[in-house]
Order: sequence, then C-alpha cells, then structure tokens
Amino acid sequence: MLHTTPRLYLSSVSDRLSHQLRFVRELDKLKGVLRRTSLIDRSRRENSAEHSWHLALMAMVFGQDAPEGIDAARVVRMVLVHDLVEIDAGDTFAYDAAGNEGRELREQRAAARIFGLLPADQHAEFRALWDEFEAQSTPESRLAVALDRLQPLLNNDVSGGGSWREHGITRAQVLQRMAPIEQGLPAAWPSVLAIVERNCALGYIRPDVADSSR
Amino acid sequence: MLHTTPRLYLSSVSDRLSHQLRFVRELDKLKGVLRRTSLIDRSRRENSAEHSWHLALMAMVFGQDAPEGIDAARVVRMVLVHDLVEIDAGDTFAYDAAGNEGRELREQRAAARIFGLLPADQHAEFRALWDEFEAQSTPESRLAVALDRLQPLLNNDVSGGGSWREHGITRAQVLQRMAPIEQGLPAAWPSVLAIVERNCALGYIRPDVADSSR
Repeated sequence: MLHTTPRLYLSSVSDRLSHQLRFVRELDKLKGVLRRTSLIDRSRRENSAEHSWHLALMAMVFGQDAPEGIDAARVVRMVLVHDLVEIDAGDTFAYDAAGNEGRELREQRAAARIFGLLPADQHAEFRALWDEFEAQSTPESRLAVALDRLQPLLNNDVSGGGSWREHGITRAQVLQRMAPIEQGLPAAWPSVLAIVERNCALGYIRPDVADSSR
Repeated sequence: MLHTTPRLYLSSVSDRLSHQLRFVRELDKLKGVLRRTSLIDRSRRENSAEHSWHLALMAMVFGQDAPEGIDAARVVRMVLVHDLVEIDAGDTFAYDAAGNEGRELREQRAAARIFGLLPADQHAEFRALWDEFEAQSTPESRLAVALDRLQPLLNNDVSGGGSWREHGITRAQVLQRMAPIEQGLPAAWPSVLAIVERNCALGYIRPDVADSSR
C-alpha cells in the first residue's frame, strides 16, 4: 500500500499529466463564482461554470444553423473557457461601470496564471481561444459572444425580469448589451427585440429617459 | 411596443427557432440536480450541469493525448449531453443498487421527452450522442465514461474522501467503479490506483472484507 504524500505522488507521474491534473482541479473553483443572473426557478444565482455549460449546449444547438464555414466545435471550446479568468478576477456585472475599471488588467493576470498551469502547448491553445473570444474579431467569437448575451436574456425573461428589475436597468442599456446578437446570431435578433419590448411593457426593464416623459 | 404573451411570441418566430429556445430554457433545470460529490472546497454538493462543464474541459485537455483517430470534439459534445436525462430521472448514486433498479426505463423516457423538444434533425443527433455514451461501444464513449469516473475521484481525493467516506464505500467498490479509466484513459490509470491506495491508507475508503482481518 502506498503512503506517498500528494506532492510525491505528483512527481511520480509524468510531468505532463501532473500539470493537466493540476489544471483540472483548479477548474472546480469556477463553480463558486456567482453571476448576477438567477436560475429560471429563481432559487439562487447562477455560477459561471454552469453558465458556461449552458452556452456550450447553445453553441451545439445554434452552431449548426450558423453561416457556412463557421467552425461550431471551436465555438463550443471557446465558451467552455471564456469565463475561466473569473477564478481569479471574479465576475464583473455587465452594467457596473466602476467594476469594469481595471477589469482588463485583472483578467490578463488571471489568464497568465490559470492557463499557465497547463503544459506549454495546451497553455497556448487555451489562451488563444480566450484571446479570440475577447477580441470578437472572428465569426466564431461573434457567435460565442452572442450566446453569452442571449442566455441571461432568456433567463431574465422567464424569471420575471431577473437582474434587469433588481438593478433598475434601462431599455437602452439592455439593447446596447444585446447588440452583438444582431451580428453574431441574426436569426434570434427579432426574438430578442420582442423579449426586450415585452419586458419594457411589463415594467421589468426601465424606460429610457426620453420615454419617461410619455 | 409589443404586448404579446409568451405563447403568441413563440408562434411568431420560426418553428425551428422556437423549438430550439424551448430546449435551451429546459436545460436550466439540470443546474438543480444535485450529485453526491461535493465541490473541492466542501461548501456544497455539485450539480450535474457544472459537473458536465468540468468533463467537457477535461475532454479538451485529455482528448488531445488520446490514441490517434479519436474524435475529441465528439467526446466534448457527448459529455455535455450525457446527464441531460437527469432533468426528469434525477441523479442515481453510483453505489446505490436499489436506486439503480428501474433507472434505465426512467432515463429512456426522459431522453424521449427532453431530446424531443429539439427540431427532428437535432433530436436525432443529440439522442445518438447519449445512446453512444450509454453503450460505451466506441473509443469516444469509453473516453467520455473514463472522464465521468475520474472527475469525482479527483474531487473526493482533494476533499478528504468526500462521498466515499460519507457512504462507507469499499476499495473493491471504488476499483470496480473506476475500471473504465484503465481502458478509456490508460495514461491516468497509475494515478487512479495511487489515489485509491492513498485514500485506503488514510481510512477514507473502507478496506475490502478480506483486508479487514489484517
């Protein structure tokens, strides 16, 4: 029977595998990073790990109908890693201007540490996926960002306004936030507009300043 | 401003999109299905959605090192859908023989309902992934099952024995449960054995009946 300590055990397996296992264990922490969006049943706030799973399935569902030439499998991989930096940098609420100051530097540091746990070739590959998501410069990353906006919209819609209502978010703020869907997943854009207008009518999204005089 | 109800809204978009959105909303329920495994920080039990996300990232990490010819992207898709039936059928604890009776029928009914929310072509595609996972008859499904066994082992190992200790699981039970890793992810098998023996030595896994006379 072995009586090795975890440290001795790690040095006894291949270095590549030990790096991979360290990364895999680190992933567990994303399950503790809470977002502002609630689950549809309103029982609790959603965490970034289960949010990422939701996006990956959406990428499978909507990736097939995306314009020809889109690599749907890369969209799946991209959304799986897109929030990993939050393990160190935390989730920043989309509508929190102050919280978004300094966010980029925090996330760059987090990316270096977390992806750096992997063997060098996989470090480069995972990092490239995250960089691509952040840059939004490819059709794949634009679809990934569209899904990242659509999922909380659907949850807010079904859970009585959710984080919009809780934080008094205005129609203009929501439309600005959702804008990437028009380009990244145009088939869903009419539905997004209908959802926004319905939640405005219900009072769950605040009217814009110009509207408030009506 | 629109004043349509959700039902009217759904009939106003394409039928395909409305089916896809219904499926996407249904997915949220998997976040409420709790497994026996705890998070590494022991703060709470893990749910099946975040577990599936963890497996998908493991498939990205270990899929690259799998034998040539394995379609790693299919392994990712397979683990993303492998627990969806639990939305209706619940999670059955691996070591609960009574709970596993009737499990297959419950899961077959769940698969028909949940994958049936999708448009017909995607219904067939998602269902085929789940059937492949269950049958364990391809290299991809054997890797997927190996990851499904490895992830709770890693969590139990780092969280002081976790569900093994809580439920008095024996060494023989753990080794039987982990056996698919030897075939599906052979590179990790020596590490699995080392983890099992270490947790036996620590008293977190119960000795087998023959061992208890020592």
